Amino acid sequence: MRRDFYEEDHDAFRSAVREFVSREVVPDQLRWEEEGRVDPALWRVAGRQGLLGLAVPEEYGGGGAGDYRYRCVFIEELARVGAASVNSQVSLVDDLALPYLLDLGGHEQKKRWLPGLCGGELSPALAITEPGAGSDLRGIATTARRDGDGWRLNGAKTFITNGGHADVLVVVARTGPEGGNHGFSLLLVERGTPGFSVGRNLDKIGQRGENVAELFFDDVRLPAEALLGEEGEGLRHLREHLPTERMSIAVYALAAAEAALDWTLDFVRQRTAFGRRIADFQNTRFELAEMRTEIDVTRSFVQDAVLALNAGELSAVDAAKAKWWTTELQQRAISRCVQLHGGYGYMREYPIARAFVDARIQTIYGGTTEIMKGIIGRDLVRD
Amino acid sequence: MRRDFYEEDHDAFRSAVREFVSREVVPDQLRWEEEGRVDPALWRVAGRQGLLGLAVPEEYGGGGAGDYRYRCVFIEELARVGAASVNSQVSLVDDLALPYLLDLGGHEQKKRWLPGLCGGELSPALAITEPGAGSDLRGIATTARRDGDGWRLNGAKTFITNGGHADVLVVVARTGPEGGNHGFSLLLVERGTPGFSVGRNLDKIGQRGENVAELFFDDVRLPAEALLGEEGEGLRHLREHLPTERMSIAVYALAAAEAALDWTLDFVRQRTAFGRRIADFQNTRFELAEMRTEIDVTRSFVQDAVLALNAGELSAVDAAKAKWWTTELQQRAISRCVQLHGGYGYMREYPIARAFVDARIQTIYGGTTEIMKGIIGRDLVRD
Amino acid sequence: MRRDFYEEDHDAFRSAVREFVSREVVPDQLRWEEEGRVDPALWRVAGRQGLLGLAVPEEYGGGGAGDYRYRCVFIEELARVGAASVNSQVSLVDDLALPYLLDLGGHEQKKRWLPGLCGGELSPALAITEPGAGSDLRGIATTARRDGDGWRLNGAKTFITNGGHADVLVVVARTGPEGGNHGFSLLLVERGTPGFSVGRNLDKIGQRGENVAELFFDDVRLPAEALLGEEGEGLRHLREHLPTERMSIAVYALAAAEAALDWTLDFVRQRTAFGRRIADFQNTRFELAEMRTEIDVTRSFVQDAVLALNAGELSAVDAAKAKWWTTELQQRAISRCVQLHGGYGYMREYPIARAFVDARIQTIYGGTTEIMKGIIGRDLVRD
Amino acid sequence: MRRDFYEEDHDAFRSAVREFVSREVVPDQLRWEEEGRVDPALWRVAGRQGLLGLAVPEEYGGGGAGDYRYRCVFIEELARVGAASVNSQVSLVDDLALPYLLDLGGHEQKKRWLPGLCGGELSPALAITEPGAGSDLRGIATTARRDGDGWRLNGAKTFITNGGHADVLVVVARTGPEGGNHGFSLLLVERGTPGFSVGRNLDKIGQRGENVAELFFDDVRLPAEALLGEEGEGLRHLREHLPTERMSIAVYALAAAEAALDWTLDFVRQRTAFGRRIADFQNTRFELAEMRTEIDVTRSFVQDAVLALNAGELSAVDAAKAKWWTTELQQRAISRCVQLHGGYGYMREYPIARAFVDARIQTIYGGTTEIMKGIIGRDLVRD
Repeated sequence: MRRDFYEEDHDAFRSAVREFVSREVVPDQLRWEEEGRVDPALWRVAGRQGLLGLAVPEEYGGGGAGDYRYRCVFIEELARVGAASVNSQVSLVDDLALPYLLDLGGHEQKKRWLPGLCGGELSPALAITEPGAGSDLRGIATTARRDGDGWRLNGAKTFITNGGHADVLVVVARTGPEGGNHGFSLLLVERGTPGFSVGRNLDKIGQRGENVAELFFDDVRLPAEALLGEEGEGLRHLREHLPTERMSIAVYALAAAEAALDWTLDFVRQRTAFGRRIADFQNTRFELAEMRTEIDVTRSFVQDAVLALNAGELSAVDAAKAKWWTTELQQRAISRCVQLHGGYGYMREYPIARAFVDARIQTIYGGTTEIMKGIIGRDLVRD
Repeated sequence: MRRDFYEEDHDAFRSAVREFVSREVVPDQLRWEEEGRVDPALWRVAGRQGLLGLAVPEEYGGGGAGDYRYRCVFIEELARVGAASVNSQVSLVDDLALPYLLDLGGHEQKKRWLPGLCGGELSPALAITEPGAGSDLRGIATTARRDGDGWRLNGAKTFITNGGHADVLVVVARTGPEGGNHGFSLLLVERGTPGFSVGRNLDKIGQRGENVAELFFDDVRLPAEALLGEEGEGLRHLREHLPTERMSIAVYALAAAEAALDWTLDFVRQRTAFGRRIADFQNTRFELAEMRTEIDVTRSFVQDAVLALNAGELSAVDAAKAKWWTTELQQRAISRCVQLHGGYGYMREYPIARAFVDARIQTIYGGTTEIMKGIIGRDLVRD
Repeated sequence: MRRDFYEEDHDAFRSAVREFVSREVVPDQLRWEEEGRVDPALWRVAGRQGLLGLAVPEEYGGGGAGDYRYRCVFIEELARVGAASVNSQVSLVDDLALPYLLDLGGHEQKKRWLPGLCGGELSPALAITEPGAGSDLRGIATTARRDGDGWRLNGAKTFITNGGHADVLVVVARTGPEGGNHGFSLLLVERGTPGFSVGRNLDKIGQRGENVAELFFDDVRLPAEALLGEEGEGLRHLREHLPTERMSIAVYALAAAEAALDWTLDFVRQRTAFGRRIADFQNTRFELAEMRTEIDVTRSFVQDAVLALNAGELSAVDAAKAKWWTTELQQRAISRCVQLHGGYGYMREYPIARAFVDARIQTIYGGTTEIMKGIIGRDLVRD
Repeated sequence: MRRDFYEEDHDAFRSAVREFVSREVVPDQLRWEEEGRVDPALWRVAGRQGLLGLAVPEEYGGGGAGDYRYRCVFIEELARVGAASVNSQVSLVDDLALPYLLDLGGHEQKKRWLPGLCGGELSPALAITEPGAGSDLRGIATTARRDGDGWRLNGAKTFITNGGHADVLVVVARTGPEGGNHGFSLLLVERGTPGFSVGRNLDKIGQRGENVAELFFDDVRLPAEALLGEEGEGLRHLREHLPTERMSIAVYALAAAEAALDWTLDFVRQRTAFGRRIADFQNTRFELAEMRTEIDVTRSFVQDAVLALNAGELSAVDAAKAKWWTTELQQRAISRCVQLHGGYGYMREYPIARAFVDARIQTIYGGTTEIMKGIIGRDLVRD
C-alpha cells in the first residue's frame, strides 16, 4: 500500500542484486548446502560488486550508504530464492561484525579489517554464546585476564556462526569481577592465534550451507590492541548493536514468508485435485488470504522500524517486537505453505521444504521469542 | 514508532473531542445501555461542537475536512472510554450515511438532509441486510417498482442499526430484473412514510446503547427524487463506499484493543496475588507483550491504510485486510484482557466486560471475516 | 465411539431429566435471566423429582447414588438448552455445598441442612473469594476469632454465587495465625444472623439468571457447632473438594460446546447464502469438522476423568487438566459457532448468543486457567 | 488416568520390544539416516523375534495376535527413541501391506508372501500416489489392461515409501472405464519384473532413514494371479484399509509428542538460565502444562479408537479425527519443545531436532489434514 518506502536508487540496486543472485547464488546453493559451506569465492564476487559493507565509509572499502533500506533490498532478494545460508553469512558481515568495528574500532583496527571484510576476502564471526550461557549474557564464563600489556583468553563458545572459517572473531569475555554490568569486554581474535581451536561443525537441521561451530580458547595470548571498544563495557556495546541484528533477522523473516507465499501461489494455481485447481478450494483461498494479510500488516510495521533505525531512533523494545513477531510469522506461514504443497513440500528440491527447516532457528538465535517478550513485558509494567 | 501520522491540528481536535467525551458521554453511557438508546440530545451537542459531518462541505453544515485522520481521532477517543454504542451511531452518520449523500446526492437532496445530519437534529440509517440476505447482496428481495414518476417499495430488512429511530433511511432495493449486477438501486425513505413500519428492537448481547431493528415496507410510495445515485447502480454504489465503512470499523477495533490493554495494564499493576503484583508474573508479562506487539504492528498498517484512503487509493482488497485483521485482533485481545481481570472482567461495571460483548459483532457486521477472506483470496488466485 | 459409558439406568434418568427441563426450565429461562434470578419454586420441583442431592444418602433426603454419571446426565441436559444459570445453581447444591456437608458435617449438621437442600426448600452458598484474594486462598483476610464457646466473624466476601439468597453459607475464615496451611477453617453461617449483610448484586455480562453478591460480616456471632470439619484444616478441606467442583465445570463446558455445535449444525443446514446452504461451503465444513473432532477427543478424556472420580482416584492434577482444557474449548467453540450464525449469533433470542456470554466466566471461576496450568506445571517439574 | 488399557501380556511384550530397540535400533539410527536407509538386516532380527506380522496367523509365519494394542506398544517404543524411519518401515509391513494380503489375498498369495514379510526377509511397498493424484484417488492414471490371462501395466507413481527396495508392491491401477468407483484394481508387482523401474530416491527433509521413490511401469506384463482382491473394487479395498493405516499414524504421532515432552522435561530440569532452572520459569511451566494436558486428553481418545479398531467398529470418520488431530498435535508440541531446547533444538544430535523434521510429513501422508476434515465435515452436514 505504501508506495514511497523504496526510492529510485533502491530499485536500481535491486536490479543489480537480483542479477547477482540469479547468476552467482541460485545455480550452486543446493550443492553448498550438501557441502556444508557456501563457496568462499562468492564473497569476493559480492565484494567486488559492492554488495558487502554497504554502510562502511568508502575510505575503508565500503559502500558509504548508511541507509538500511539497501540492506533490506539485498536481504529480500536472497529470501526470494530461499538462500538462507548465504543471507546469514552476509548479515554476519554487514549487520553484526561491521557495525561493531565501525562504531567501536580505532582507526588502526578499521584499516586492518574493514577493507578485507568489505571485499569478501576475509570473513568474521561473533562469539557470544557459551554452553552455559545462551540468552543470559551475564552467565558468560570465558575470561580474559590482563597479562602484561595484553590479555590471556580462556574459555569455550558454542553455536558460533562461521566460527570454523572466520578470519577474525569478536569474542565476548569477562574482564572484571562477577556481578554488575561492567565486567565484560569485546576482544578481536585472529584465526590461527595459538591456543584458539575450532571444535565440531554442528550438524543442523537447516541453514546447512553455513558453518556453526564450537570454539575453544586455551590460554590464548592477545595484544593490547585486541580490545574493541571500552574495557568493561562489552555488555553495553552488545546491547547497543542488538537492534540492528534483530532488524536484519526480521527483514529476512518477512521476506521469507512472502517468498513462501509466492511459491505457493504458483503451486496452487498450477496443480489440480478432484478436478479443480487447488487455488479454487475455499480453504486454500482462506489460507492464502490469511497469510497475505498477515504479511502485509507486518510489512507496514517493519518499514516503520527500518525508517526508525535509519533515523537512529529504533528502541530496543521496538526491535524486540519486530524480531519475535516476524520470525513467528515466518514459521507459521511457511509451515502452512508446506501443507499446501502436499508431499512436494517435504522434498528438498522444492524451496519451500528448505525454507521450512531454515526458518526454525529464527525464533531462537538473535534472542529467543521468550527473551523478546521479556524485554517488551518488562518495559510495559515498569512503574 | 511513527511520529508523523498525526499533526498539530489533529492534536488540537483530539483535545476538544476528549473534553466532549468526558463531559457528555462518560457520565451517562451505562444508563444509555440500560435504556437501549443513547439520548438523542447528545447528537445535537456533538453537532454544535462540529463533531459530526467532518468531511461535509461547510455550505451544507459540515466541517469541510476530508482528512480521515480527524475521524480516527474521534473514534479513538470513544474507544478509549468504551463508548461503542456512541461510536456506532457517529460512524453511521459520518462513515455511512453522509458519504452516500455527499457522493451520490443531488443538490436538493444534500440541502434537504446534510445540515440536519451534521447538526445532530436528524439521524440516518442504512438498510441493506435482509432476513435471507446478509453478506450476499444479490439475495436482496426488497423491490422498488416504478409507479408513475415514483416508486412503490415492498419488502423487509433486518439488523438495521438505528432503524427504529432514523429520520431518513438509505434503502437498497431491487429495481430491475434478477441476475446481473445492475438490478439494484438506492432509495431515500423518510420516517413516517405510509407503509413503512418498524418491528422489534432486537435484543443484542452488546452495543446495548444502540437500536437495531427490523423494518417493513408495505407498498411504500416514494417520489422520483427518492432515488439516490443512478438507477440500477446500487451495488456499485455500495461497493464503492464499503472501504470507508470498513476502515471505520478497523480504526475502532484497533483503538478498542489498545484501550483494553491500557485498562489491563492499570489493573495488573495495582492488583496482587500470592504476594506479588499480577504484573510481575511472567505469564502476565508475556500476555501483555504479545498484545502490545500485535497492536503496534497493526497500527502501522492501519495508518498506511488511512493515508491511502485520504489519497483515494485504498483498494477494496486492502480495506478487507484491515477490517478482518483488526476485528479479530480486537476480540482476541479483549478476551485475554478479560482473563487477566479475573472475576472483575465479567462485571459490567468494568469497561473491559462491556468491551468484550461490544466487540463480538465486529467480525460479523460490515462484512464478515469470511467474506473479507473471500475477497482477498479471490484477488490472489486470479490468473 | 465408546458405547459403554452410560448404562441403562442413566438413560432412564436422562429421560426423566429431559422431561423436567423441557417442562419446567425452557419456557421460563429467558424471563429468569431478565429478572436476575431463577424462580426458587423450580428447586422445590426439582427436589420433589429427586434431581437434587443425588449422592446424598436417602436417610438425609437424597438420591443415594454416588455415581457421578447421574450428575453428568443432569448437567448435559441443562447445557443442551443453554440453561447455564440453572445449572450453576444445581451444581452449587450438588457439587459444592452438599459434598462439604456430607464429608465434613456431623450428624446434627447433616440432619439440620441436608433434607432442605435435597428438597429444594433451602439454598446454599460457598463463600471463599474476597476482594483481595481470588485464586490465592492464603490471602483470605476474613477472620473468625474464638469467642467463648463460639466464634466472632469479621470480613467481606465477593463474587459469591447465590450469596444474596442463600439460607446457609459455608464461609472460609482465618482462625489461626498467619503463615502456614493450618490457619483457616470452614464455618456455617445462616441467613439472618445478626451482623451478616448482603451487598450489591453484581451485574454480570452472562449467567444472568444467577445472583452473585458481595457479603459482609460485621462481628457476626456464631455458635461452636458452626464449625464444619476440623479447625485449622479449612484449606485442606477445600483442596479435597476442588476436583469435584472442577469436574462439574468441565462436564458442563463440554456439553455446552456440544450443544453449540448442534444448534450450529441445524442453522447451517437450513440457511443459505450465495445460492448454497451455508453447510456446503468448505470453510463451514472445516470449522464444523474441527469442532466435532475437538469435542469428541475431549469427551473420551472427560469420561475417563468421571470414572476416576467415581473410583475415588481422580487427582487434583487431572481435574485441573479437565477444567482448563474443557472451558477453553467451550469458549473457542462457542465463539466460532456465533460467527457461523452471522448477525443472529449476536441476538439474545438465539441460544448461541446467550451461551457465548454465559461461557466467558468458565475459565475464571473454580480456579482460573492460569491457576490450573500452574498446578499441572508444578507437578511436572518437581524433582 | 485409565489404568486398564494395557494388560499384563502387553507389558511383557513391551519389555521385549524395549530391549530390541535399545540393542538393535538406537546405536545405528543416526548412521542409517545418513545412509538414507535402515540396514535391512534389522528386519530379519525383528522377524526372528516375532515383531513383524503381529496380526498374521501363525500358519503364515505371523504372531497370530489380532489385538492392535501390541502394535501400539511397538510404535510407542520406537517413538520413545525418535526412530521415525524404522517405525515407518515396520508400519508399512504390519499396518499397510500385510492387512491387504491377509484380507484380500488368496491362499497361494498368502503362502507366497506372508512368511517372508513376517520374517523380515522380504519388504513391501504400497504404490498409490501419482504425480497428478495425491489425495484424489480417482485421478489415478496408471492403467492395467487385460492382456490374455494377465495384465499389462503402464504408468508412474511417486512418493512411494520403500519403493526403491521393495520385493513386492501393491499397485493401484485403473482397470475399467473412467468415472465411477469401480474402475480400479490392486495388483501385486514383484521387483525385477521387466518394465518396472525405480526412479530417483527423493531427498526428504526428514524421515531420512527411509527410501521414498518414484516408480515407472512401462508395459509391465503381469500374470492373472497378480490381482489382489476383486477386480474393479480397488477403491473400496483401499477405503476399507485406511482406518488401520491412519490409526498407526495417530498412535505414532501421540507417542512422538509424548517422547518430545519427556526429552524436554529432562532438558529444562537440568539446564539453567539467569540463575534458575529453565523449568522454574512460569512460561516454561505453562508450556509444559499445556502440552501435558493436550497429550493426556488425546490419549483417552486414541485408546478409545484402538479399542474400537480391535472390535471392528472404528468408522472411517473417527479414524480421520484421530489422524488429523494427533498429527497436528504432534507438530505443534514438537515445535514448542524445540523452542524450549533453544539452540540445541536445532542440532541433529538432539533427538528433538530430528523429531521436528520427521514430524512434518505426518499431516500430509496417509491423507492430509484437509482431506480428513473434508471426510468429517461431509459426514456432519449430510441431510
